[in-house]
Amino acid sequence: MDFKFIQSSLIIICSFICSCTSKVLSNGSAPNIIIMLMDDMGWGDLGVFGEPSKETPNLDWMAAEGMLFPNFYSANPLCSPSRAALLTGRLPIRNGFYSTNGHARNAYTPQQIVGGIPKEEILIPEMLKKAGYISKIIGKWHLGHRPQFLPLQHGFDEWFGAPNCHFGPYSSKEETPNIPVYNNSEMVGRYYEDFMINRKTGESNLTQIYLEEALGYIRRQAASHQRFFMYWAIDSTHAPVYASEKFIGKSQRGRYGDAVMEIDHSVGLILKELQTQGISENTFVFFTSDNGAALMSGPLQAGSNGPFLCGKETTFEGGMREPAIAWWPGHIKAGQVSYQLGSVMDLFTTSLSLAGLQPPTDRELDGLDLTHVLLENRIIERPIFYYRGNEMMAVRMGLYKAHYWTWSNSWEEFKKGIDFCPGQSIPVVTSHTQEEHTQQPIIFHLGRDLGEKYPISVSSAEYQAVLKQISPVVEKHRKELVPGMPQLNMCDLAVMNWAPAGCEKLGKCLKGPETNPWKCEWPH
Amino acid sequence: MDFKFIQSSLIIICSFICSCTSKVLSNGSAPNIIIMLMDDMGWGDLGVFGEPSKETPNLDWMAAEGMLFPNFYSANPLCSPSRAALLTGRLPIRNGFYSTNGHARNAYTPQQIVGGIPKEEILIPEMLKKAGYISKIIGKWHLGHRPQFLPLQHGFDEWFGAPNCHFGPYSSKEETPNIPVYNNSEMVGRYYEDFMINRKTGESNLTQIYLEEALGYIRRQAASHQRFFMYWAIDSTHAPVYASEKFIGKSQRGRYGDAVMEIDHSVGLILKELQTQGISENTFVFFTSDNGAALMSGPLQAGSNGPFLCGKETTFEGGMREPAIAWWPGHIKAGQVSYQLGSVMDLFTTSLSLAGLQPPTDRELDGLDLTHVLLENRIIERPIFYYRGNEMMAVRMGLYKAHYWTWSNSWEEFKKGIDFCPGQSIPVVTSHTQEEHTQQPIIFHLGRDLGEKYPISVSSAEYQAVLKQISPVVEKHRKELVPGMPQLNMCDLAVMNWAPAGCEKLGKCLKGPETNPWKCEWPH
Repeated sequence: MDFKFIQSSLIIICSFICSCTSKVLSNGSAPNIIIMLMDDMGWGDLGVFGEPSKETPNLDWMAAEGMLFPNFYSANPLCSPSRAALLTGRLPIRNGFYSTNGHARNAYTPQQIVGGIPKEEILIPEMLKKAGYISKIIGKWHLGHRPQFLPLQHGFDEWFGAPNCHFGPYSSKEETPNIPVYNNSEMVGRYYEDFMINRKTGESNLTQIYLEEALGYIRRQAASHQRFFMYWAIDSTHAPVYASEKFIGKSQRGRYGDAVMEIDHSVGLILKELQTQGISENTFVFFTSDNGAALMSGPLQAGSNGPFLCGKETTFEGGMREPAIAWWPGHIKAGQVSYQLGSVMDLFTTSLSLAGLQPPTDRELDGLDLTHVLLENRIIERPIFYYRGNEMMAVRMGLYKAHYWTWSNSWEEFKKGIDFCPGQSIPVVTSHTQEEHTQQPIIFHLGRDLGEKYPISVSSAEYQAVLKQISPVVEKHRKELVPGMPQLNMCDLAVMNWAPAGCEKLGKCLKGPETNPWKCEWPH
Repeated sequence: MDFKFIQSSLIIICSFICSCTSKVLSNGSAPNIIIMLMDDMGWGDLGVFGEPSKETPNLDWMAAEGMLFPNFYSANPLCSPSRAALLTGRLPIRNGFYSTNGHARNAYTPQQIVGGIPKEEILIPEMLKKAGYISKIIGKWHLGHRPQFLPLQHGFDEWFGAPNCHFGPYSSKEETPNIPVYNNSEMVGRYYEDFMINRKTGESNLTQIYLEEALGYIRRQAASHQRFFMYWAIDSTHAPVYASEKFIGKSQRGRYGDAVMEIDHSVGLILKELQTQGISENTFVFFTSDNGAALMSGPLQAGSNGPFLCGKETTFEGGMREPAIAWWPGHIKAGQVSYQLGSVMDLFTTSLSLAGLQPPTDRELDGLDLTHVLLENRIIERPIFYYRGNEMMAVRMGLYKAHYWTWSNSWEEFKKGIDFCPGQSIPVVTSHTQEEHTQQPIIFHLGRDLGEKYPISVSSAEYQAVLKQISPVVEKHRKELVPGMPQLNMCDLAVMNWAPAGCEKLGKCLKGPETNPWKCEWPH
């Protein structure tokens, strides 16, 4: 067995770190940047990855015209931390998007959350501003809903969308406000009141609204020759899954498929608009998702993780392997498949590089600059760390993945019928209690065993050789890691979306309870 | 050489005369046809379908430049019947490539087999001859090894390869001859004697030989402006898996990955040669495999079936879903994914159509003409039937698949350590005894459940609606089916490759035993 590739990875990682501080692209050719971030969409939901329901002709075309990434990862198996990592280029354990209330617990930003993205964190739009970009987020924010945490406080110039998930409807009886929808710094209504989602039929025109927002924004910037960053974070594939009237019942896969069809259609229109406006060769577009398909919502409201084990909330491949496509006609050669191990965090560093900016040097960054991967199909060896809350559960290097901790979901939730790995009970691998393997990690070869079903025998030479290469990388990571202040520990009913800015004009202000914070409980 | 040229000239003249009488598509634009048939390669072995080991850049490129088929099927989960079906456009139950010695048993053509492809069957090259094509098979034949069954008796003008699998080495002590390798109508040596496969290291230069054969053939036909059909049926991914020296140890997945890398490299060179010769726009190329990955040879000598259940020998998706790519620059638009349910049998009908020929009308054909699928990305609704031996085990219509019989593999084999579904024990679905569900088929929705894990509840409205649609199709198929005479019932040691044509010249003739036929036993 030849494990030289792992060794060489360290050299390449090192040389990368050195090169990114010295070598940057000229800003003259800096493209517009569009990140399309899906919600709970699975790796297996693209036709080009084998989903058979005829839902993604436009995404398949985008892949054929660009670069497909079969080995692209979220930074976390849950929404908020994944999004915080994407926008900061840093693991949630560094940027604070985790909780220490329990071991290895996924936390996010429900309405009760007190915390949000710390002001010390630097987000993509804040950086891009230095290179003359203006930025808009369309859709779901999820980095904290209190005033100081909102997008316009963190570099975005415009926003249309909501700070939290579209859960609901809530009534005042339940003492929970419906989630507000913002246009820039003021709310313009609430879900289930002014922005309808029919829970029975699954009908909502939200994706159409988000599409129109995107098309209008592109047209305006093209007309004024303004360089822009657009973060299109739509959420129709997150339960409650929805689609607009035109798409309801159109797919062969139920409501989830309808939502995918509408998204695919919208992606097609956005790419076409770039062509119509004559800026397609000057716009870098990246399509991915925030975490694996939410199998616990299946089958009708969940996507597909293709061949991978388990789904959202877990650190098995199904929880963090994402569909990913880069598209930049005239720059990224058509029809490529990149075997690069990529991460949503790379979108931070790569965006900076494309804009001709140097990354901040006062903090650890986990994202790589993928410019050479995109333009020359190079491979940069690097580890992928799989975190669940405050614990590094697993690491991937090359084709090997080592699990230091495993956990599917808690007995507590499982007994309620919630299952993150439905139908996938793998002895020694899946479990309802947290299992520690730090002394002897479970190691898989993802080339021979995509589904993480066959642990490599600990007595084999292969196991020993792999462990020898992985151990120092893990040790170094752990030793040098300085965790950020955890932002997702405290909850308080008083911080819910009672009276968002702009509520007075609409007569939508509600009165919340007195502050009464508690340590949030994270069952997953 | 000169003689052959005259021969083919005569064929061309003849075909011109014949074609005047039949009303067919214009033959003027009929392309050369290349079918690349892999052996035991799995759906999941292509990078574009998610295999992470960096083995298929050329195939990924071929897909991006052509049309990718994620829903393409073998006609049988085993080699010989699948190949017979491809070349005749007919299910094995019709063309005789099955056995009635047991119920639902996969049969093939080992050296002891008495039967082979019946002379009444019409193969692709026999048809194409009428349109002025000459034909060559490179690699594995597997349609019977007795003289009357060989490729040159069934329409091929040239052959370089072997009639059977490359099992061995055998010694005279074992009373089994090694498999001969033919050049046209005469043997030129035997595996493990003149054509080496090192069982220890997995080294063999056979794929290089098959590559050179292909390149030479293409060059010769291009030079003489001769329209051709090339059937490139290489077998390095079939156990014992092999690769040539240059590729041994080069992949990250072991011997199997080495073989895939060599194949991918060879495919790239063949496509490039077509471009170099200026005939790429006049050559239709189709890449696929004969059945699912042979998981029983895993992990080091088996491929990946991606998300699909079980593998070779079974009628679950892993046994019959194949990687498939069509490539024809200037005709098939680049970057398409076709959701068409396709079958290897369609290659018969489509080849005829491309050549401007009408299919034979004196027999049932199971293959569709995919011309409009390829050129206009249309979808033709059609059922896919999954046969195991003499039994229709399952049928797929749209996204639904109904299993009328299920069987993983026999207890008899399973107890010997042979497992067609390693690590995949699905209650009610996988079993070691044949299970009948003809009164109440197990139905899956392959869009929501690629892995065939969650049978749709028989009491659901969905189940009833699907069954109502599928039942008449199955009933009609069964009622109208006229099984062909089974060719794979009888075995006899006397028919083994003792003294193939040409053996005298080489001093390679062996003496076999007296004829003593018996009913072959098929344990799978």
